[in-house]
Amino acid sequence: MKRIGLLGATGSIGVQTTDIIRKHPEQFALFAMAFGRNVEKALPLINEFNPEIVVVQDPDVKETLKRQGYQGLIYVGTEGMYEVATHPEVDVVVNAVMGSVGLSSTLGAIEANKQVALANKETLVTAGHLVMDAAKRNNVSILPIDSEHSAIHQCLNGESKKDANKIILTASGGSFRDKKREELENVTVEDALNHPNWSMGAKITVDSATMMNKGLEVIEAHWLFDMPYDQIEVIQHRESVIHSMVEYVDKNVIAQLGTPDMRVPIQYALTYPNRLELNQTKTLNLVDIGTLHFEEMDFARFPCLRLAYEAGRVGGTMTTVLNAANEQAVALFLNGEISFLTIETLIERALEAHDAIEHPNLETIQRVDEETRELVKSYVK
Amino acid sequence: MKRIGLLGATGSIGVQTTDIIRKHPEQFALFAMAFGRNVEKALPLINEFNPEIVVVQDPDVKETLKRQGYQGLIYVGTEGMYEVATHPEVDVVVNAVMGSVGLSSTLGAIEANKQVALANKETLVTAGHLVMDAAKRNNVSILPIDSEHSAIHQCLNGESKKDANKIILTASGGSFRDKKREELENVTVEDALNHPNWSMGAKITVDSATMMNKGLEVIEAHWLFDMPYDQIEVIQHRESVIHSMVEYVDKNVIAQLGTPDMRVPIQYALTYPNRLELNQTKTLNLVDIGTLHFEEMDFARFPCLRLAYEAGRVGGTMTTVLNAANEQAVALFLNGEISFLTIETLIERALEAHDAIEHPNLETIQRVDEETRELVKSYVK
Repeated sequence: MKRIGLLGATGSIGVQTTDIIRKHPEQFALFAMAFGRNVEKALPLINEFNPEIVVVQDPDVKETLKRQGYQGLIYVGTEGMYEVATHPEVDVVVNAVMGSVGLSSTLGAIEANKQVALANKETLVTAGHLVMDAAKRNNVSILPIDSEHSAIHQCLNGESKKDANKIILTASGGSFRDKKREELENVTVEDALNHPNWSMGAKITVDSATMMNKGLEVIEAHWLFDMPYDQIEVIQHRESVIHSMVEYVDKNVIAQLGTPDMRVPIQYALTYPNRLELNQTKTLNLVDIGTLHFEEMDFARFPCLRLAYEAGRVGGTMTTVLNAANEQAVALFLNGEISFLTIETLIERALEAHDAIEHPNLETIQRVDEETRELVKSYVK
Repeated sequence: MKRIGLLGATGSIGVQTTDIIRKHPEQFALFAMAFGRNVEKALPLINEFNPEIVVVQDPDVKETLKRQGYQGLIYVGTEGMYEVATHPEVDVVVNAVMGSVGLSSTLGAIEANKQVALANKETLVTAGHLVMDAAKRNNVSILPIDSEHSAIHQCLNGESKKDANKIILTASGGSFRDKKREELENVTVEDALNHPNWSMGAKITVDSATMMNKGLEVIEAHWLFDMPYDQIEVIQHRESVIHSMVEYVDKNVIAQLGTPDMRVPIQYALTYPNRLELNQTKTLNLVDIGTLHFEEMDFARFPCLRLAYEAGRVGGTMTTVLNAANEQAVALFLNGEISFLTIETLIERALEAHDAIEHPNLETIQRVDEETRELVKSYVK
């Protein structure tokens, strides 16, 4: 029985994680869960799983929970998440919170020797060196909850890392893949949130439309699999059937394929190195799908992908700026304050304004992160 | 340094095996080689690699070699191949002879605890239970030299066999995939030998056109990977880019992809569990290929595939009959004695005439094999 500490329980990945726990009560228990302010979504989960600890974002939510009759422990804020991530009774920490706020919990979980299932890719983008150094030191497995990185993890299974020649990430192209750049001038938030293949949270769906999501994934892959940027390639694959591939030195290419159901990588991250039946998801049927397409990525069409490679190659705090600027710009777009194309303009401005600091520690990262958000906000005031 | 005993050195797989040995002189040495009667092809190999033992099919070829100045040991016939397969100085036996004549050498190599690289799929079709029992008893790895089975082997790497739910073999469709059945009445040997994707020997190219090759591969997969026939599926995939796949219980599908170059599975079988660079083959480029297609297999269009599944499910000597009848019928076709469609008619007649014997030993298999060849010949007298 694995006892799970779930951070970000009411988000898309969080809810699907509870679905996996529900289907395998003999394997998993929800020991603790953290959420933000969505009490409506959280309460049924709390009543169903009766976790021993609940973490909420603000004290007023704590009062609400108490009034609703929850009798377990209630912790508050980032410190509360850290308590769960390092709790002696937690076996697996699922970090599915959005954005770089998940960083300290991830580091805490690693130092406390937990198995870490990581949906929070911003953690690796903003502080990959700290996370992977800690993981190596503590001999902890970081299991990605991301269809692409779960794919790569599986393609590397049983293989020697030194034999891997290239990682090939596939990109669906996002909501606007069939639009030319000039057609993006007036797209709305609603348009951006209409992803062709995957049903996901708002921030990641916008990231897919700008292709920043793939850029963040390139940086994530660099850290998770210790692979130089020159050996990470992105190709467009409309159908999202091949989730990613690894090319070996002997020209064999191993790929992972599947239907677009995030419960598959979530469950894999929880069960690894074993597998468990997952009957409620559809079996991939290539005959029904019929045709798979592959196209070159257009870096001029998707400048965010270029920016991500550039920031990744510079390294240090440059990827912290990339991530923070992106989070802030996407928030401004979702809030109706800027246009879609302004997202990439603001990120590029923030990157150009920054002199990267090499080997930053956690404090430096957090400071650069905050400064970048303020800077990006100042651009639109 | 692995010392290789290569059986079938002048065939397509044999010659490509010597190419791998040539490219990695620090890893491999050609200790012994066996060939049939093709002295012209054999002599340059003998002069280049100077193997300590050469096996030839007939005594007159032995005399020819001596006249040409070869000073090593020369053995003759199946007994000679067996000597090489069990020779104490041989580390890896590559069995690339054509047809069921390779069986006793394979069994000998296993009993002598060699790593066995098996291009001779007829061995497993005709006597899979004997081969796999011996391999299990002697804890010997059988490494398939066949793009499909090498693919499956790689897809199962690092995984627990019990988690594999289904093997999905891909079939290019062979030389006649775009012809209707009624158009096959008058096809010639030359037509049949014109495979769209792979350059291979004559017998296997005809087997691809009848789809018997895929049928033999289904039976081979059944034995190699201990998988029930209901969990082995064949789909048509014109481009032969995905060489085969494994579907796991958690709906993850792992696939191996590559260019159509047999040196890739040959080298993998020689280097496993490691990999080595293979620079002389093309890197797979999915963007250049652009599109992959998948279609359902039509069992009415390809009766040989149906016959293979049926014979496999009956088991015992039924697959011996399938294989022997096919070898004989294809030989008759290549010799211009029967039409293309008569191949499948003769196989079906031989299968219908046979009462399967369960758990046959080697002698029974060899007797049934010979009787079947005579029977098939008698059909066209």
